[in-house]
Amino acid sequence: MQTNEGIAYGTVEPEGIRVYQGSPLVHWEATDVFVNFGDIQLLSPVLPSKVVAIGRNYVDHAAEFNNPVPEEPLIFLKPSTSVVGPGQPVVYPKLTKDLQYEGELVVVIGAVARHVPAEDVGQVILGYTVGNDMTARDLQRKDVQFTRGKGFDTFCPLGPAIETEFDAAEGMSLITRVNGEVRQDGSTADLVFGVAELIEYVTSVMTLLPGDVIMTGTPGGVGPVQPGDRMDVEIEGIGTLTNTVVAAS
Amino acid sequence: MQTNEGIAYGTVEPEGIRVYQGSPLVHWEATDVFVNFGDIQLLSPVLPSKVVAIGRNYVDHAAEFNNPVPEEPLIFLKPSTSVVGPGQPVVYPKLTKDLQYEGELVVVIGAVARHVPAEDVGQVILGYTVGNDMTARDLQRKDVQFTRGKGFDTFCPLGPAIETEFDAAEGMSLITRVNGEVRQDGSTADLVFGVAELIEYVTSVMTLLPGDVIMTGTPGGVGPVQPGDRMDVEIEGIGTLTNTVVAAS
Repeated sequence: MQTNEGIAYGTVEPEGIRVYQGSPLVHWEATDVFVNFGDIQLLSPVLPSKVVAIGRNYVDHAAEFNNPVPEEPLIFLKPSTSVVGPGQPVVYPKLTKDLQYEGELVVVIGAVARHVPAEDVGQVILGYTVGNDMTARDLQRKDVQFTRGKGFDTFCPLGPAIETEFDAAEGMSLITRVNGEVRQDGSTADLVFGVAELIEYVTSVMTLLPGDVIMTGTPGGVGPVQPGDRMDVEIEGIGTLTNTVVAAS
Repeated sequence: MQTNEGIAYGTVEPEGIRVYQGSPLVHWEATDVFVNFGDIQLLSPVLPSKVVAIGRNYVDHAAEFNNPVPEEPLIFLKPSTSVVGPGQPVVYPKLTKDLQYEGELVVVIGAVARHVPAEDVGQVILGYTVGNDMTARDLQRKDVQFTRGKGFDTFCPLGPAIETEFDAAEGMSLITRVNGEVRQDGSTADLVFGVAELIEYVTSVMTLLPGDVIMTGTPGGVGPVQPGDRMDVEIEGIGTLTNTVVAAS
């Protein structure tokens, strides 16, 4: 979060937000200072070195584009420069005519992770947050590679916070609203490849570093937005990530 | 480079390597200390936040896989965790049966770069180095997305140094040897999309940060390597990047 004193992590407590020194990714210590939500601005809860994202990881989303569910997780990367925080604008690029939201559950990695078996992933997960895998659908289709269509600055809103007590397998609701209207209504229990399998798979290829994130894929119901539209992605037990689309200047 | 005193940048001068304080990416100052090549280990000359790579950017390489040359640059990302320096081993993953070299000219970005017109790219280029876009060809073909096949740890050797006086359009030779035998023999004049066009294109999508790199694509002649093979990628006017393949432990 951005406070009057600078950037800090905090924990949500009954008295307000307790300010910490340091970072949960390295070392942090509680202070006796509390701030109120009205006095701070939430930032992306992590600045990942890598954003690893998963394609076609809900049956209904794969089906809406006539894609089969892959036999193995389909991984791609979004550039770290695409990350923004809650409340920050998502810029509609001039190069696309079909900007779409994709609400997603996001795993935040808390330790250096390589070759982590599914049964041990608890040791490398810091927690979970909400993400919006903004996509220029026309460019994604045209390029085949997803990099450009999903890689523009501001295309990766993350937040509002990292929830450490969360179990996707319990089936938490994932709802995306545009201007208050429900567009996606999924459950984290419907991930084709669950969180443990995804971490095992990704770390069989590359090292994940503290603060790196895995975006676990989006349920059915994706669709277009226009400048001025407000997007709310809400995951039960974590919170709501809100961003508004603005036209490129 | 790694010296006995720690990690430092240096410049190659007639007396040896002059050690600098700081980094050319931010601020650096010359010292009166010189070291010899025998006393140091070269490291990757940058640790990029992003490795942007270009596919099918030489006519003969596109043709060897029966691909058309794209109408626009084909961009993809390699994870920053794939970067290694000169002399560091490239690990042959157990998940592939077809590991291949791809020697490439690499642009090193020296300034925050967004929406940079082709005529202004000189302002954001720090210099040029040599890269080897290691590729698990079987996984690249299977996944369609290039992320896994090109994303393993150690799959992005960079080095040996950053050359600031270099002009790709002059047609500098790019030669890849495996165990001393020439496999790729191209010219930087044959880039389909030249350096200026690539920077304009990439920065029309995403912000490049100091130290980020653009791998400009590989000429024809790519092929497999095996554990124990030595790969030398040499670009005239820059130097030779040497790495040896080792089996996964």
